[in-house]
Amino acid sequence: MNNPVRRSRLKISVLRIGHRFVRDDRVTTHVALVARALGCDRIFMNEVDKSIRSMMDEIIERWGGRYFNIEIIESWESTIKHWKNEGGKVAHLTMYGLNINEVIDDLRNCDKLLVVVGASKVPKELYQVSDYNVAIGNQPHSEIAALAICLDRIFNGKELTKQFDDAKLKIVPSPNEKKILNNSRD
Amino acid sequence: MNNPVRRSRLKISVLRIGHRFVRDDRVTTHVALVARALGCDRIFMNEVDKSIRSMMDEIIERWGGRYFNIEIIESWESTIKHWKNEGGKVAHLTMYGLNINEVIDDLRNCDKLLVVVGASKVPKELYQVSDYNVAIGNQPHSEIAALAICLDRIFNGKELTKQFDDAKLKIVPSPNEKKILNNSRD
Repeated sequence: MNNPVRRSRLKISVLRIGHRFVRDDRVTTHVALVARALGCDRIFMNEVDKSIRSMMDEIIERWGGRYFNIEIIESWESTIKHWKNEGGKVAHLTMYGLNINEVIDDLRNCDKLLVVVGASKVPKELYQVSDYNVAIGNQPHSEIAALAICLDRIFNGKELTKQFDDAKLKIVPSPNEKKILNNSRD
Repeated sequence: MNNPVRRSRLKISVLRIGHRFVRDDRVTTHVALVARALGCDRIFMNEVDKSIRSMMDEIIERWGGRYFNIEIIESWESTIKHWKNEGGKVAHLTMYGLNINEVIDDLRNCDKLLVVVGASKVPKELYQVSDYNVAIGNQPHSEIAALAICLDRIFNGKELTKQFDDAKLKIVPSPNEKKILNNSRD
């Protein structure tokens, strides 16, 4: 199946850099969950704790999105180089960048976009090799929040109503309770 | 000083519930950072690791926002009861709720709004006592992402350009480098 949010030609992957073992496990898990839920096709990350991949596998098994890929990489430099060689653009989310309001049209007009989120301080070179250094506000907050707002803005909120065709479980939105449809044949 | 985002009468606090020691420390820290950076006045939370408060104090000292309060609470039920007695409304962010697109106008029209985000499973009663159960998409992802998108939608992105008058450090947005103004007299 295809990514249901990709109604335009725009294809987005996420690159998570600087993950530190144990300390960043939960945050990186949230980054991966946001990437899947908010319309991306893939996340690249350094080697991470196995629990992150198994948790994502479980989510995809139950809630759908088998097209979504987790790729373990050796070096972020090679990943970006390869991405750019294939004609993709790179947007690095950083509080030091230009406000997203200023670059949102450019981001929407890309064919392939790699959104880069760092764990702690990121290498200086990343500011240079990125096509866009984008600030989701110029205040310190959270790479998870930054990624979420960036994707919500790019897709104009359409990702929040999508369905995953291969889901076993689907939620029936409700004002005051939990309602789940189980399409599984198990 | 006042909260610079509060151009309308709307005043937002965040209630973090279900924090588990150690396991949720980093995620709760991100929730608090997002609340401050994206226009809220206060966060209520159960007793948490001291590092969370000291980190927030340090952020506020350097980046401003002394009006922002961290309140340690005993019971989320009492906090919500008190909030509602004072005429405030309660929006619980949950993947089981109604899509934010359907309730955004109601949220914007509140005077006082308490946005509730849970760590893991939340008590059933929360669905009943909340005025709005709001889904930032009906997929599992992240309470940090949900809070960020909710605030960005409510404030129509205005929180991303605000200045904190009492900041020692201010960023000069740049396309490809880190530029910081230091207003401190130290």
